[in-house]
Amino acid sequence: MRVVIPFAPRDPKTRLSEILNVEERHSFAEVMLEDVAVAVEMAGGIPEILSTDRIESRWKVIVDDRPLSVAVNGVLENSKMPIAIVMSDLAIATADSIRRLLESEGEISIVPGNLGGTNAFVTRREDFRVDYHGTSYLDHVKIAEEIGSNVTKVDSFRLATDIDVKEDLIEILIHGEGKSRDWLIERGFHLEVKGQNRVGVYRSEMR
Amino acid sequence: MRVVIPFAPRDPKTRLSEILNVEERHSFAEVMLEDVAVAVEMAGGIPEILSTDRIESRWKVIVDDRPLSVAVNGVLENSKMPIAIVMSDLAIATADSIRRLLESEGEISIVPGNLGGTNAFVTRREDFRVDYHGTSYLDHVKIAEEIGSNVTKVDSFRLATDIDVKEDLIEILIHGEGKSRDWLIERGFHLEVKGQNRVGVYRSEMR
Repeated sequence: MRVVIPFAPRDPKTRLSEILNVEERHSFAEVMLEDVAVAVEMAGGIPEILSTDRIESRWKVIVDDRPLSVAVNGVLENSKMPIAIVMSDLAIATADSIRRLLESEGEISIVPGNLGGTNAFVTRREDFRVDYHGTSYLDHVKIAEEIGSNVTKVDSFRLATDIDVKEDLIEILIHGEGKSRDWLIERGFHLEVKGQNRVGVYRSEMR
Repeated sequence: MRVVIPFAPRDPKTRLSEILNVEERHSFAEVMLEDVAVAVEMAGGIPEILSTDRIESRWKVIVDDRPLSVAVNGVLENSKMPIAIVMSDLAIATADSIRRLLESEGEISIVPGNLGGTNAFVTRREDFRVDYHGTSYLDHVKIAEEIGSNVTKVDSFRLATDIDVKEDLIEILIHGEGKSRDWLIERGFHLEVKGQNRVGVYRSEMR
């Protein structure tokens, strides 16, 4: 199955600015993208990057600088079905979790993300369209209903976890099985349990 | 299968104090407990509440006022196997997600929670013990290895989501299928998408 991974290389992951400088954010976003694409490949999917800019990649790259929803809908309009769309920052995705998505039955399968996002989906309906604004998960369920389709919900913590803020790095350090985890560890990131029995992520001075 | 749900009715869910008063926190903790126990029952498990105080319940209640890990280990020491331990604040747990845990194979199956917690597990090994301090998920994987057992990881967003802070209520409003969601809605809680395209939870004045 064709699995399209949207990617925006310009100033990525701005909410990680407090702990990563701009070069690091670029590098980290690319490493996460690679982890996702490798997991897709190991799950039997064919990854393609839908990028807002030209990038070097060992996978096919489609360049489209329009906003996310418009670009994804452009792909959906012109693709054979089924097709999957998977976000590029699902850094703890594994082949197993992606496989559960790709093998799920039903016309439209959605993986809800934290806080109402839509982290991944598969559609066999060529008239399904996306709108990533706001609580997109609820909107996508509604859009599916409007075209007379039922949504299969794929319940995965690994795919529900997208990486936006510092605390999300905790999940990579605990559950990551790819390069994103190594990348963080090489740069001094580690877990510590401090007051209130809560785990936090900290960065050691490397020099 | 016996499914024990630890519950601490004294001053519960303190991190929700900014939006719920003490009576509301008690009531909400009980409603979440009920949702979990009902999901367990619908999944074919037999719920028992392991409570730090005497409480009224339609399910069997074991009273043990010792700290969480000590009380749970007391249960594990004296139980027939298999047995499951499921946290009481998994308010978006469903019968399907609990069933995936109860039917998972292997000697010890663990559902990791957000931020390194252990939200639920099943053990068929009578020598498995818990330690809920810190990143308990990693500790439990280690404890399992030390007794020569392998951990099966159950990948569920619904079971990974425990309810501790205000933002967690967003997940209940989006995904809840039980009484916890109704409870929040009756008290004026609702979702709004504000600046930065991020969803938040807000409470309307009811009178």
